Amino acid sequence: MPESLTFILELIGTVSFAVSGAMTGVQKGMDVFGVCILGLTTAVGGGVIRDLVLGAVPPSTFVHPVYALVAVGTALLVFFPSVRQLLGRRQHAYELVLLLMDSLGLGIFTVVGIQRALDLGHRDNLFLLVFVGVVTGVGGGVLRDVMAGNMPYIFVKHFYACASLIGAGVFLILLSLLGHYSATIGGAGSVVALRLLAARYRWSLPRAHQ
Amino acid sequence: MPESLTFILELIGTVSFAVSGAMTGVQKGMDVFGVCILGLTTAVGGGVIRDLVLGAVPPSTFVHPVYALVAVGTALLVFFPSVRQLLGRRQHAYELVLLLMDSLGLGIFTVVGIQRALDLGHRDNLFLLVFVGVVTGVGGGVLRDVMAGNMPYIFVKHFYACASLIGAGVFLILLSLLGHYSATIGGAGSVVALRLLAARYRWSLPRAHQ
Amino acid sequence: MPESLTFILELIGTVSFAVSGAMTGVQKGMDVFGVCILGLTTAVGGGVIRDLVLGAVPPSTFVHPVYALVAVGTALLVFFPSVRQLLGRRQHAYELVLLLMDSLGLGIFTVVGIQRALDLGHRDNLFLLVFVGVVTGVGGGVLRDVMAGNMPYIFVKHFYACASLIGAGVFLILLSLLGHYSATIGGAGSVVALRLLAARYRWSLPRAHQ
Repeated sequence: MPESLTFILELIGTVSFAVSGAMTGVQKGMDVFGVCILGLTTAVGGGVIRDLVLGAVPPSTFVHPVYALVAVGTALLVFFPSVRQLLGRRQHAYELVLLLMDSLGLGIFTVVGIQRALDLGHRDNLFLLVFVGVVTGVGGGVLRDVMAGNMPYIFVKHFYACASLIGAGVFLILLSLLGHYSATIGGAGSVVALRLLAARYRWSLPRAHQ
Repeated sequence: MPESLTFILELIGTVSFAVSGAMTGVQKGMDVFGVCILGLTTAVGGGVIRDLVLGAVPPSTFVHPVYALVAVGTALLVFFPSVRQLLGRRQHAYELVLLLMDSLGLGIFTVVGIQRALDLGHRDNLFLLVFVGVVTGVGGGVLRDVMAGNMPYIFVKHFYACASLIGAGVFLILLSLLGHYSATIGGAGSVVALRLLAARYRWSLPRAHQ
Repeated sequence: MPESLTFILELIGTVSFAVSGAMTGVQKGMDVFGVCILGLTTAVGGGVIRDLVLGAVPPSTFVHPVYALVAVGTALLVFFPSVRQLLGRRQHAYELVLLLMDSLGLGIFTVVGIQRALDLGHRDNLFLLVFVGVVTGVGGGVLRDVMAGNMPYIFVKHFYACASLIGAGVFLILLSLLGHYSATIGGAGSVVALRLLAARYRWSLPRAHQ
């Protein structure tokens, strides 16, 4: 049962990050193949890094085609102007969709990353679990930004890695108190909520003065 | 016998990618050491990613010095203006050499990557084989471009990852029909042919309109 | 005993690279969280790459919290303008601190990388030992520069990877002649000395003429 939940979550996270990667590719004026590759890289990047770190090789992305196919299919859809118009006709709506998709991917992959480490037997090292969760969550977005020539979100969006870190903690606390389902929904949900609140109220952390 | 073929191919691919990396370093005005490092990274990067993904650690580049030595030696040669003049005196010829070397490396490493996965016992998962082949093929060039501050080829050159993908398919089909030699030559050759045709006839895929 | 020496060295290297990463983040005008993440990435990046290459997973950074905590704590300190004023009030002194910290991290991680490979039983392959040492030494800085959108040091600072390479050789020679302590101090010390000399006397390698 938890396995099927993880599978469904991973699909939703894959779609979300594929949308965010593809939209970034469109913004950079890439052709249809570039848009697909950036969508794919964003969607599967975090999971590949997670599996390399955990020694689960070949990474599941390379073994189970479903994630790559869903990512490429999603990116293809985003490529069509008419689909993007559905996502948001105006600049404001477009950016909201990008924020939502990116936050959803971040939250889900944070939780899925910890779950994967638990499944592989890493139960006692809380630090490892949190660290792996954050790396899985932010990995795809970092690859997207570095490959597209942008400054990575984690450096410029307030509460990006921070939201992932808090979500990882929420997941682990709820897991010991309430069980798997509550932990998953609470963990991923708190990441999305934190990022939306940060964007809405323009939470900002102090910036360095040189 | 196939092992010696793989070895020779990997050397040709190493030289090709070392030339393309070194030429990129020269274009960026790097000094002789920077040119050597970019040549080395381009030449061995795809193989290192491949071995990490397949769990074959330490990656063969770290165990067998020949690849790194050949890559650095090649990059050193490219550094000398007189050698580069042999490669192409005029801008047009220079770019043709860069295209040829990059395509040759892409084709060979795609095929070698699949072969390595087969040697490690991954025989039944066609998706894994193709995916590993493409990652091996494009990996070195992506590292080259990201480290040199360029937009990666795979996003901007039409038919880059696409050629690698088709070449991987050709290799696997010919392998089951005709055997190792035909598959290797047909797979790598089709990558080079596709990229040259794409460059010659300026094949372009539709670009996103924002 | 050597284990405690490695531990202390790794802490000093972690602090040094965390300072260099955090100072780079400050120069880029990042907020406090971005500065911490860049400090962390720089400090632990080389070790993570080293452990992935050696197949020692999960990498020690993920298992032992001390390195990440020290790195984030150091970066937090660097974020405060008053601490940075201690590091160097004038531009010249500031750059000297950055050079020193980066060189210290480079030297220490080169030596620690080789030591880790030796501990894991890779004793006979000198090439592997040197290669792993250099990758461990330069890895954190390359991640720092690529993620911050700078051209990596290894391409533009003369004697960067070169100093690491020479330091690796010095370490291995002294290890066979004099033992662990002399090798460690001689190896890391020669890296720092070479980089300071290169900066002081503006050693430069020939640059490519297009």
